Amino acid sequence: MPILRRRASVSDMTETTNAPTDIRETTPAASGSAADVARQLRVDIIRASDAAGSGHPSSSLSAADLMAVLYKSHLTHDFDNPSNDDNDRVVFSKGHASPLVYALLRAVGAISDEELLTYRKRGSRLEGHPTPHLPWVEVATGSLGQGLPIGVGLALTARHLDRLPYHTWVLCGDSEMTEGSMWEAFEHAAHAGLDNLTAIIDVNRLGQRGPTRHGWDLDAYSRRLEAFGWQALQVDGHDVKACDEAYRTAKATAGRPTAIIARTVKGRGVPSIENRDGHHGKPLEDADDAVAALGGVTHHRVEVAKPSGRGIAHRFSTSFEARSPRWDLGDKAATRAAYGEALAALGYERGDVVALDGEVSNSTKADIFAKAHPERFFECYIAEQQMVAAAVGMQSRGWRPFASSFAAFLTRAGDFIRMAPISHADICLTGSHAGTSIGPDGPSQMGLEDLAMFRAVLGSTVVYPSDANQAARLVRLLADRGGVCYMRTNRPATEVLTPPQEPVRLGGSRVLRQQRDDAVTVVAAGVTVHEAVSAADQLSEDGIGVRVIDCYSIKPIDVATLQDAARVTGTVITVEDHAAEGGLGDAVREALADSDEPPRVTSLAVRQLPASATGAEQLHAAGIDAAHITETVRDLLTASPSPVGSTAL
Amino acid sequence: MPILRRRASVSDMTETTNAPTDIRETTPAASGSAADVARQLRVDIIRASDAAGSGHPSSSLSAADLMAVLYKSHLTHDFDNPSNDDNDRVVFSKGHASPLVYALLRAVGAISDEELLTYRKRGSRLEGHPTPHLPWVEVATGSLGQGLPIGVGLALTARHLDRLPYHTWVLCGDSEMTEGSMWEAFEHAAHAGLDNLTAIIDVNRLGQRGPTRHGWDLDAYSRRLEAFGWQALQVDGHDVKACDEAYRTAKATAGRPTAIIARTVKGRGVPSIENRDGHHGKPLEDADDAVAALGGVTHHRVEVAKPSGRGIAHRFSTSFEARSPRWDLGDKAATRAAYGEALAALGYERGDVVALDGEVSNSTKADIFAKAHPERFFECYIAEQQMVAAAVGMQSRGWRPFASSFAAFLTRAGDFIRMAPISHADICLTGSHAGTSIGPDGPSQMGLEDLAMFRAVLGSTVVYPSDANQAARLVRLLADRGGVCYMRTNRPATEVLTPPQEPVRLGGSRVLRQQRDDAVTVVAAGVTVHEAVSAADQLSEDGIGVRVIDCYSIKPIDVATLQDAARVTGTVITVEDHAAEGGLGDAVREALADSDEPPRVTSLAVRQLPASATGAEQLHAAGIDAAHITETVRDLLTASPSPVGSTAL
Repeated sequence: MPILRRRASVSDMTETTNAPTDIRETTPAASGSAADVARQLRVDIIRASDAAGSGHPSSSLSAADLMAVLYKSHLTHDFDNPSNDDNDRVVFSKGHASPLVYALLRAVGAISDEELLTYRKRGSRLEGHPTPHLPWVEVATGSLGQGLPIGVGLALTARHLDRLPYHTWVLCGDSEMTEGSMWEAFEHAAHAGLDNLTAIIDVNRLGQRGPTRHGWDLDAYSRRLEAFGWQALQVDGHDVKACDEAYRTAKATAGRPTAIIARTVKGRGVPSIENRDGHHGKPLEDADDAVAALGGVTHHRVEVAKPSGRGIAHRFSTSFEARSPRWDLGDKAATRAAYGEALAALGYERGDVVALDGEVSNSTKADIFAKAHPERFFECYIAEQQMVAAAVGMQSRGWRPFASSFAAFLTRAGDFIRMAPISHADICLTGSHAGTSIGPDGPSQMGLEDLAMFRAVLGSTVVYPSDANQAARLVRLLADRGGVCYMRTNRPATEVLTPPQEPVRLGGSRVLRQQRDDAVTVVAAGVTVHEAVSAADQLSEDGIGVRVIDCYSIKPIDVATLQDAARVTGTVITVEDHAAEGGLGDAVREALADSDEPPRVTSLAVRQLPASATGAEQLHAAGIDAAHITETVRDLLTASPSPVGSTAL
Repeated sequence: MPILRRRASVSDMTETTNAPTDIRETTPAASGSAADVARQLRVDIIRASDAAGSGHPSSSLSAADLMAVLYKSHLTHDFDNPSNDDNDRVVFSKGHASPLVYALLRAVGAISDEELLTYRKRGSRLEGHPTPHLPWVEVATGSLGQGLPIGVGLALTARHLDRLPYHTWVLCGDSEMTEGSMWEAFEHAAHAGLDNLTAIIDVNRLGQRGPTRHGWDLDAYSRRLEAFGWQALQVDGHDVKACDEAYRTAKATAGRPTAIIARTVKGRGVPSIENRDGHHGKPLEDADDAVAALGGVTHHRVEVAKPSGRGIAHRFSTSFEARSPRWDLGDKAATRAAYGEALAALGYERGDVVALDGEVSNSTKADIFAKAHPERFFECYIAEQQMVAAAVGMQSRGWRPFASSFAAFLTRAGDFIRMAPISHADICLTGSHAGTSIGPDGPSQMGLEDLAMFRAVLGSTVVYPSDANQAARLVRLLADRGGVCYMRTNRPATEVLTPPQEPVRLGGSRVLRQQRDDAVTVVAAGVTVHEAVSAADQLSEDGIGVRVIDCYSIKPIDVATLQDAARVTGTVITVEDHAAEGGLGDAVREALADSDEPPRVTSLAVRQLPASATGAEQLHAAGIDAAHITETVRDLLTASPSPVGSTAL
């Protein structure tokens, strides 16, 4: 996915900045006390925001002392080699404190003063909220409540995958403590005994629009965190000795994660805005004065301790004994079962493949992987946000996570999925029990919006197999694919129509029925492929030729095959067990609309709220079964314009 | 939205069920002890699941005693008049315990034994998970972790809107305690002091695929809930006296909500499955034996206490002094500001309009409403799931909620939004700061997937105004619209192009530039309308006629105007500040693909991950500004086929 890997260069920034001397050449190693460093961080926070004309200096200033002490005395990280496996990981869950991130990077000598002042400018690596365009930034943050869950993923990786002693430090805002995802993370981390994880909670009392719920009631946070099984340490976040002691305690504590609950002052260091509402997300009005009052620009250098060990991340042993599963033509199997079988088989071949599930592994069939590779399976319970966040954390360390739940419930993690490409994440998500074909459980369990959600994710890949052989093959292809990958699987068993030896490819499709004089093309995917074949065979008996395309790759889509078919048949019908918007119909129209003579496209999709019924009754009620396809074909061939599939009010 | 209001009839079910006598005619009022009633509930749970051949009897059996005691001795509800304002509300957050819901409805005489046995069959109101097809079901559940947040919305409504003493009871599963949304709800409820809310937590120790994290460690739950400010009462959930006492205490407690943490046995009452893993979501193998062992079918009748008062829900006084805001042509204003102004004005006219926001009201401009109507504004802090859930709860009591956050962060509530139509909910959501036009904050803050998410919601309405007059008018139109309504607003001020007196309608559009010999149609929405106008004016100077359509109503869309324009110009270009999938381009193609001769459609959209830059730089980098529109028009008119907008790999 090269479009997602664009690493911005700052070389084109020089003309837009007042470039002082690059301090990396001239500054001696390790200079200044923690207080000196904190003062420098404040100055740089103010300068960067001032140069940008935007940003969140007040939210950065509150955490300057906390981070000065961490970097100076407790962090272990080789900034010359950010990919060192042994490096501690730092995640700014309060991503809007990006000026502090960049001020720290200058203090450790990773970026120049010149680059610091490119903050938020076009082409700069120093974005409004931190992203992995900078090699020292593990994952993107900026949507609050995501950094800590991702940090849990990193700590799980350290403990169970990499098997290395590095520590994960997460700076959290007090405002984000209201996000449910934080509590999914607190719960997961304590239950997993992640003493290699420390959350630093910057309690500066003020959110974007006013006071937080708990203000400076540090006990309110301690009570909650202790109840969740964390060690909670309260400190004055501007007392460097107290911070130092807290970090020491955190690292020395075994068996449970630690939260450092720090009372801080928003805007600390700039009296005109200290602890005052109305200064969120704004550069200072008098930046020069504030910088001068803090002692002006300094060039203290923080020498962060480098890892002493030469840790090499653990890799699981592989075996080529296991074969990828295959089914014979005419077998019946659910695509969700094929997912589980194929993933388990892949796990034997590839030691980097790991799986996560949201307490439904006996439905998604991730349990087949769990049984085969228990050391690489992560039960996330019913916490889909934490599940996706953990996957993002794991992939940032080079693992290849496959996470699964019902297609319907992956929408719970919509914001985490949206953020994944900003983290440059390569993850595979599988949503089972998609569509009305699940039958009697009813609409709460049906994924009817999942294709729309995943298609809109930047750089995503979306596949929807119609049989077990396709599903198994797609698992292997997605394992090598970049970006956010999504596979939609079905609950009921479907007949195997794809020969086991036939190639399946991303961007491919299968033509299942084809005659020279085809009058209509029916494009289907997943369960509706079987309905389309049945309709085509029925119509064939009446001498009506229907071309049937199994569009198992929805993004990318097989533009050439679709355009060829459309050229021959003119009329195209799409049939999907999904809402009418954002799914197969939209994808097919997109592929065809750039032709010289786009065909007419009629879409059969789920347009009314389903209730309970059997799977077959559901497909019939939604108007997406063989009977409706047959009827639609006949209508289109006899009447014009057709009343079917109109999307108007 | 009549399609969402389909109330299934059971009249067509009689041939599929073994219809016993309707007990409502023959049973005397109030019979049987709580234990007798619980036994009957168990029998009916087993019978209903057996008749359906699916369902979750084991998860229902664990809570039978708890609910028997509640309904018999503590609930206040007039089942003959479910719309009585004074009725207590009951929400089954563990919606899969639907057999228990229906067994209770038979016990109170609300449904017949005949209807009970229609469970999960096509046409039955007794769906796999409860929905408001039944008038005694407030809201749909079935996606775990949603019922309690909605219950918080109901309790807030009772306290602050209806101003009535009814109580909200929510039956929760222990498995769903891992969902972050539960903790958003616990936090909100305690902070709001909702002593009119009781959560009953059915700790049966077993989830779908195995044990829960905390098993029967009731203290683990108590510690967490007490830390969150709740009263936590531990009981044996099969001891009717203990349950009775706990309910009494809950109702008598002032100032904070109560959680009844009940130790229960999954499958209780059926020794062959009691407390055994592997029996989740399955009917019993020997239902007849189990029913016989429980004493067979009985006809005990629970007389639920009716409300003694004649409460009338509070309504806020209205005033017609305030006028809807309007802007003069050429004024500059942000659509988000127009949203806030218009909503505040509407609040004066309509006492049923309420607003909620996720701690960004000074950005979404909901703060204008908050200042005007502080009693009807709900600060939900950064907890978008709880915010949408509260809105769903409020609308179920007849209020008209408008909830807002950044468009990007509404994806956090994706699962709640998906479930809203299943609850038959009428809610308005507004997402501000949509698209790259926000500028330097970067992609984490940009809504680029929101149109895709909302278009795919069944029965939804999606609008995206380009100027303040449109935004203000659309607020008023959405207030009368059913289903899930979404308005997308922008951060930057845009020029007012819509005359204040010009009608704006759902399903409408505006033709901004039109000449007889237009060569191309450009369809835009929101910020890109202004780019399209600028491009058209530039091209006009070169003698190239471009028809510009402001497609402010994206669902429903103005099919007629789009098809007319396409007929004249042939070629169509769409331009949107959104991902290429699921948004304006897909909507326009959908509208045009059912024409007799669909036009060629080229889409300009955000196809690469944005970074930081100014708003104008962002539009340019994404290829959606006036310069790119101009270039695309020229390319399309001179070359064929065009290289622009290809959607292939």
